[in-house]
Amino acid sequence: MYKVAIIMGSDSDLPVMKDCAKMLGKFGIEYDVKVISAHRTPQAAEDFAKNARKNGYGVIIAAAGKAAHLAGVIASMTTLPVIGVPIKTSMMGGLDSLLSTVQMPKGIPVATVAVDGADNAAILAAQIMAVYDETLAEKLASHKANMVAEIEAKNNTIDEKLKEMI
Amino acid sequence: MYKVAIIMGSDSDLPVMKDCAKMLGKFGIEYDVKVISAHRTPQAAEDFAKNARKNGYGVIIAAAGKAAHLAGVIASMTTLPVIGVPIKTSMMGGLDSLLSTVQMPKGIPVATVAVDGADNAAILAAQIMAVYDETLAEKLASHKANMVAEIEAKNNTIDEKLKEMI
Amino acid sequence: MYKVAIIMGSDSDLPVMKDCAKMLGKFGIEYDVKVISAHRTPQAAEDFAKNARKNGYGVIIAAAGKAAHLAGVIASMTTLPVIGVPIKTSMMGGLDSLLSTVQMPKGIPVATVAVDGADNAAILAAQIMAVYDETLAEKLASHKANMVAEIEAKNNTIDEKLKEMI
Amino acid sequence: MYKVAIIMGSDSDLPVMKDCAKMLGKFGIEYDVKVISAHRTPQAAEDFAKNARKNGYGVIIAAAGKAAHLAGVIASMTTLPVIGVPIKTSMMGGLDSLLSTVQMPKGIPVATVAVDGADNAAILAAQIMAVYDETLAEKLASHKANMVAEIEAKNNTIDEKLKEMI
Amino acid sequence: MYKVAIIMGSDSDLPVMKDCAKMLGKFGIEYDVKVISAHRTPQAAEDFAKNARKNGYGVIIAAAGKAAHLAGVIASMTTLPVIGVPIKTSMMGGLDSLLSTVQMPKGIPVATVAVDGADNAAILAAQIMAVYDETLAEKLASHKANMVAEIEAKNNTIDEKLKEMI
Amino acid sequence: MYKVAIIMGSDSDLPVMKDCAKMLGKFGIEYDVKVISAHRTPQAAEDFAKNARKNGYGVIIAAAGKAAHLAGVIASMTTLPVIGVPIKTSMMGGLDSLLSTVQMPKGIPVATVAVDGADNAAILAAQIMAVYDETLAEKLASHKANMVAEIEAKNNTIDEKLKEMI
Amino acid sequence: MYKVAIIMGSDSDLPVMKDCAKMLGKFGIEYDVKVISAHRTPQAAEDFAKNARKNGYGVIIAAAGKAAHLAGVIASMTTLPVIGVPIKTSMMGGLDSLLSTVQMPKGIPVATVAVDGADNAAILAAQIMAVYDETLAEKLASHKANMVAEIEAKNNTIDEKLKEMI
Amino acid sequence: MYKVAIIMGSDSDLPVMKDCAKMLGKFGIEYDVKVISAHRTPQAAEDFAKNARKNGYGVIIAAAGKAAHLAGVIASMTTLPVIGVPIKTSMMGGLDSLLSTVQMPKGIPVATVAVDGADNAAILAAQIMAVYDETLAEKLASHKANMVAEIEAKNNTIDEKLKEMI
Repeated sequence: MYKVAIIMGSDSDLPVMKDCAKMLGKFGIEYDVKVISAHRTPQAAEDFAKNARKNGYGVIIAAAGKAAHLAGVIASMTTLPVIGVPIKTSMMGGLDSLLSTVQMPKGIPVATVAVDGADNAAILAAQIMAVYDETLAEKLASHKANMVAEIEAKNNTIDEKLKEMI
Repeated sequence: MYKVAIIMGSDSDLPVMKDCAKMLGKFGIEYDVKVISAHRTPQAAEDFAKNARKNGYGVIIAAAGKAAHLAGVIASMTTLPVIGVPIKTSMMGGLDSLLSTVQMPKGIPVATVAVDGADNAAILAAQIMAVYDETLAEKLASHKANMVAEIEAKNNTIDEKLKEMI
Repeated sequence: MYKVAIIMGSDSDLPVMKDCAKMLGKFGIEYDVKVISAHRTPQAAEDFAKNARKNGYGVIIAAAGKAAHLAGVIASMTTLPVIGVPIKTSMMGGLDSLLSTVQMPKGIPVATVAVDGADNAAILAAQIMAVYDETLAEKLASHKANMVAEIEAKNNTIDEKLKEMI
Repeated sequence: MYKVAIIMGSDSDLPVMKDCAKMLGKFGIEYDVKVISAHRTPQAAEDFAKNARKNGYGVIIAAAGKAAHLAGVIASMTTLPVIGVPIKTSMMGGLDSLLSTVQMPKGIPVATVAVDGADNAAILAAQIMAVYDETLAEKLASHKANMVAEIEAKNNTIDEKLKEMI
Repeated sequence: MYKVAIIMGSDSDLPVMKDCAKMLGKFGIEYDVKVISAHRTPQAAEDFAKNARKNGYGVIIAAAGKAAHLAGVIASMTTLPVIGVPIKTSMMGGLDSLLSTVQMPKGIPVATVAVDGADNAAILAAQIMAVYDETLAEKLASHKANMVAEIEAKNNTIDEKLKEMI
Repeated sequence: MYKVAIIMGSDSDLPVMKDCAKMLGKFGIEYDVKVISAHRTPQAAEDFAKNARKNGYGVIIAAAGKAAHLAGVIASMTTLPVIGVPIKTSMMGGLDSLLSTVQMPKGIPVATVAVDGADNAAILAAQIMAVYDETLAEKLASHKANMVAEIEAKNNTIDEKLKEMI
Repeated sequence: MYKVAIIMGSDSDLPVMKDCAKMLGKFGIEYDVKVISAHRTPQAAEDFAKNARKNGYGVIIAAAGKAAHLAGVIASMTTLPVIGVPIKTSMMGGLDSLLSTVQMPKGIPVATVAVDGADNAAILAAQIMAVYDETLAEKLASHKANMVAEIEAKNNTIDEKLKEMI
Repeated sequence: MYKVAIIMGSDSDLPVMKDCAKMLGKFGIEYDVKVISAHRTPQAAEDFAKNARKNGYGVIIAAAGKAAHLAGVIASMTTLPVIGVPIKTSMMGGLDSLLSTVQMPKGIPVATVAVDGADNAAILAAQIMAVYDETLAEKLASHKANMVAEIEAKNNTIDEKLKEMI
């Protein structure tokens, strides 16, 4: 099975992106975590992107904020699917990060998830690798089933919780 | 090789989404096109989503506008990767479609591309299927190389074009 | 008299939606509260929506945040009026929730109230049921009169309050 | 059966709101259409709102653009449900109209539909009146079924249409 | 000299609007403060607006938040100049209040100041009354001169302050 | 009676601002029209602003688009009331013009009207001058009455118009 | 004197950027025009940026739309000042381009001008080169003086133009 | 070498702008800091701008918030390059400041950096002065190299940090 690369523009993104690592771990997917800045370390970005496929990565998850170019820059130099995680900022809750990540021009897509959507980036990576991997597909199905069970459990206590509040 | 499903909330989205079909065709990827509305034909959406994997689809591309729920609704009922194409509207150029598609809650990602990003949705689908498909990966690399050549060609005539304009 | 259903995408919405329950209680309207996620429990959403009318509900109030599909998904599977409460998020104060709830395509309306407008959702539900219910209409008229009295009372102390402040 | 009132801030809103009248007609619901401006004819607004219930209206649909106060002003003077239709403007596609209509303070809800959502306003009015009206509820169910049939029909020709385009 | 009326949609606006009262006081302008809600006390709004001129007011300052109709509703029923103060909200920092106040349709202007611009509302009221009042115009000129002096004073200490910070 | 100055950042604003001139004419208010740019002719702006009061102006109306500084710059150099008209642009329908005009800092208010609100600027100017001018106040009252009559007239033909449309 | 490089993400930007070339020409500044895409020709972008200084460029002007990374990517690989021109799009009039260009993270500035601000980019480039170039500084001063003269000329005909319109 | 002027609309901007001073200090660039308000001290703004070049400044950095006219007003009265720093506000995270600074009309550019981008303003000033200053250009190159080293260092500890978090 391929590895997933989690790269982020700054180590200050780690408190958000740790959830991505955790979720990949749950699915038994191997991953590496690196700080790579499209702007401050362009050479590292290039080296990483150009060698990602041959270094055993199947999917790249790139998180960045503000004028968030990281995912797009990586995507310009690989044919692997690149998942972009726009990081929340104080500019309209991260609209700058979102638009900079998702509004890619023709030819170079970035698979964008929600602002701060670190866990969903991991699930999407798993879904991508599960296209050709039955076992992983089953793990994803279980994960879906668990979410149903969790919500059912919450329904058993919701009336009680409400009573305490009103 | 798996097929790709292109579904759209309304047949008025076809003039945008035809570019997606065309691009998949260029990569030699088989696809089906269907009109499915999350709101008007919820049963069809459910039937489609629950059987997509066993019906031979590897990736689903879902296009919708305004309160664009289609991609999210499909994603809730399959473990296949779902690519969302927000369709341009008159509400801030499609910000409604974009936010409705990308801001998915924990557990159910949608791989969102740019507003009206039909061709990028196709390229992303190809990238996803190319994770395990060397031949397709090479086609993607050629496509990248062709873009470089096209832009180089444009550079040969840019000075002339400019002269005509100023 | 019909019951009102208050459903919400996550139990983290309860601190907002408790005000809805409280207000329905003031009008003597019976209600049930459930956690149902359009994305995580689509089957529960379908079961609920399809049986809502015959289970004695007259109005459905659905609260959700971000790509807030809950109200729309429910509305697609019932002919009961569905009131949508967009929940505040960090994305422009809930603009994502608002647009995802209100910008419904032709054929499937959602009666949207303000972001976090839990009490107004309850009043709107009461107004809907009061179309054919004189007693409830009178309760609504009293509620309006009470608001007038409250504000008049505030006017008696406003000069004092101002003096303390300046 | 109660009548529905369709009021609008300016007769320039009629090309949008005619779809509301048409849709009410389809459901066999009687309606009146009036131009009432919250700002230019406040007295007419007051007279209309205060007498709406006793004049036989069950639901009020109010359309306005820009600083769209009409629905809110009417709602402040009646206990009938008021549906607000924000009219598209050049200010971010009608965000001014939408926020002015939907962001009502505690106590006075407006049931807001999409920008220019004239037909959905009619369907919502029908749903409200159908809470206590089985025949109307069945008409709504038929309307839903017709939408399914229409989309199925479109699916029969979508492949052909696509071929012509690509 | 005419009085100024400061009205606000809720007494929770007082901590903002007290600065308006204070500033009017500095200019020696008499004022009254009232809580009047366009939505909850429409009758009070009407009574106030229709009698404002004959009750000795020269300018009306109206503060409200969210779907902020107060200034517009008052302006519809008087020929006095009405200054609108949009109150900050969590919806994009008060964009809802701002658009609801400023985007008035033809015929009924509201003189809108900045979000939470309570003191500027007072200065604007003074400027309006100073058109025909030389003494007040001189007070406004002094106020301008004082601002210059204050900033000059700050420039004397800015280097010191900076040194402490870096 | 004082004159009104209509100044605009560019003569391309004239097709919008002519409505302002027309409306002032209706009220019998004398006006001058000038092109003054805060950025391109700062000296002219200063000369104009500093002498406006003694040159017989009572109110200044300033129209500008994009980073619309004109009204603010003028207001910084006069104690006359300055009305700002934000001109529509392609940046979110003029949100840049609106925010640049209305969000003035403490001490220097601009009385902002709607985007492209040229006629309302004129009415507001008239209201300001009518504070101390009974005759003008009566003209404003007539103007209000005329608007009521116009809308009543429209109500006489609305049913016919609707019939032609549906 | 150094040359200026005008680069743009696509030759479809030329109708906007030709004004930049024209204005540089007016100042007698030599320039080259190239199509370079941050995403489609990343290698060309790198080659250009790394050699820009030694190839005789003093300032780089980079125009791009949507997720506009071009200016930022170039800025990451040179120490020359990079001026970014966000190109207008249908997403809120180019807010995506603007935020992607201006919201650069610490360490890598882009000197951003207005959306479609091609001529201002040229003037800014001239101002930058004029810091150490008296002759160019004088040309800039003349250009400023010419703008004053042009506006004065417009003031001579404004009354006539207005008369024709009203 | 020329000096840099750091001016700001209010001394409350100093906690942001101190980073600008610090960064200029790192590059050995001399600077002055002043509080100048476009609105409250227009005369000081004019005096400063008109004499900036002859007083030895090479670049002007102007920071302001809300309807942020400072940079534009200064730019209108000098031919020096003016860098604008939009200060964060509660109005959509500073979108008002950003649009008021960057959306300058033809003829008068402001080199705008990110909201609160104080350090980038300093780097941009250094880049501008380094066009003709090899030593400064080398300092900028070192600064870039240091950023690479810092990020490399972070990569050595990122795995550890992640382990502590998950």
